[in-house]
Amino acid sequence: MLSTARTIAALRETISGWRRAGQTVGLVPTMGALHAGHMALVEAARRDCDRVVVSIFVNPIQFNRQDDLDGYPRREAEDVAKLMAAQTDLLFAPAVEVMYPEGFETKVAVDALGDCLCGAMRPGHMAGVSTVVAKLFLQVLPDRAYFGEKDYQQLMIIQRMARDLDFPVEIRGIETVREADGLALSSRNVNLSEAERAVAPQLFEALTDLASELKGGGGAPALLPNGRRRLMDAGFTEVDYLELRREMSLAPLQQAEPGCRLFVAAWLGQTRLIDNLKVL
Amino acid sequence: MLSTARTIAALRETISGWRRAGQTVGLVPTMGALHAGHMALVEAARRDCDRVVVSIFVNPIQFNRQDDLDGYPRREAEDVAKLMAAQTDLLFAPAVEVMYPEGFETKVAVDALGDCLCGAMRPGHMAGVSTVVAKLFLQVLPDRAYFGEKDYQQLMIIQRMARDLDFPVEIRGIETVREADGLALSSRNVNLSEAERAVAPQLFEALTDLASELKGGGGAPALLPNGRRRLMDAGFTEVDYLELRREMSLAPLQQAEPGCRLFVAAWLGQTRLIDNLKVL
Repeated sequence: MLSTARTIAALRETISGWRRAGQTVGLVPTMGALHAGHMALVEAARRDCDRVVVSIFVNPIQFNRQDDLDGYPRREAEDVAKLMAAQTDLLFAPAVEVMYPEGFETKVAVDALGDCLCGAMRPGHMAGVSTVVAKLFLQVLPDRAYFGEKDYQQLMIIQRMARDLDFPVEIRGIETVREADGLALSSRNVNLSEAERAVAPQLFEALTDLASELKGGGGAPALLPNGRRRLMDAGFTEVDYLELRREMSLAPLQQAEPGCRLFVAAWLGQTRLIDNLKVL
Repeated sequence: MLSTARTIAALRETISGWRRAGQTVGLVPTMGALHAGHMALVEAARRDCDRVVVSIFVNPIQFNRQDDLDGYPRREAEDVAKLMAAQTDLLFAPAVEVMYPEGFETKVAVDALGDCLCGAMRPGHMAGVSTVVAKLFLQVLPDRAYFGEKDYQQLMIIQRMARDLDFPVEIRGIETVREADGLALSSRNVNLSEAERAVAPQLFEALTDLASELKGGGGAPALLPNGRRRLMDAGFTEVDYLELRREMSLAPLQQAEPGCRLFVAAWLGQTRLIDNLKVL
């Protein structure tokens, strides 16, 4: 039975009942428009925990453009049906005023990790993410929380924040779910035109090819510009970044080494897609 | 019986035993060198809560000058004796490496409230305070936490942080404890020479007189410069600020109004003293 909480008090009341019964709680924070990638997080939580809470909140402070916030897909009725089918216990779907009442002015930021990649392209984005996740952690106090590897920088930032601030929560990263043609699932994919959708899988193909070239000993300074060119030739309209970095620290690398990963963000018209791939 | 925890694991083990027994927990965060002002916080916690945790941690990230950090008084043996006499249950006294392991890079900041008064004079100070208090709250997960009104800006910032991030903790502000001559108790008072100690009570006297002049209808732009001059004439070597502000928002005011307070910071040689007083 899925119940829905719209206030922090209602959320806490349900959860404290579970706590008294000695049950463990898993949290899956989302912005809704749920797809199979989100549902893989819910399934992982279902396997690990007695109770599963999914939050749906399109977090305004992590958007740096109003049109992007306005255009972000919202489809709660369909989301609820998916969550019921996946035996979610509780949906937390607060209004903006519940999360950010008047006078709100606290920020949680993970400095160095938030400055590169998507953080550099979208000022304030990563601090917006870490702030809302800190709030959700404090509202739910889950035993475990689940995040997709598709937003890998976000996952590293949340892991670092949880460790640095001593949140009593275990962060689990779950592998990216992909379409048959390799495109990483994303709520933003619904915004792609048919022609853009045909180009989109090139993002993952380019990463896959670059990863094998890097593993073969090629250097990033030579290979990455080729990769950018390939994406533009395939029909991407802009490449925000295409970089080789260490997984934990996100430090940039010239050569592949154990624990490194490729990161990419590129535009197809009005839609920005991101992806990443472990190299070694 | 006072026990001492030096690691987060040891702290949590003791507290989780209390939690299982259904006991409430009060936290008094301090930097040690305990005086009657701190002990008033411990006594308030003792009255309200089943268990009392006092933390002693001289927090390096809230000091903006190395000599100030090095010179901050440390006297754990005497502190322990006071805490035992006050029936404290647990002392948490972590080393710097326990609180800030290598790679630490997360900050919790309350923007507007941290920019004025002591925040303007001591860059990074207030974010250092809110970050360490966020950590202590997450380590202890207390029902209530106690802070002195002497550090009034700090109290407002912590209250705002706790509210904004949904910490499940009640913040209690406790009235400033003063010497017979009015000097607010502070760990820094031990650094005053005999001559400086004789001048120090003028700080509170000046606030008291200004408060009655403001209540009498005087304007802050006329009265505050007189107050600064009076402090310099009395022997203070520098006045960092002397201001009239709203209590909750810390917005500056020209005239007294309900919920306003005077704030002062001034130097006696190498020692910086702060104080504040409710006007209306």
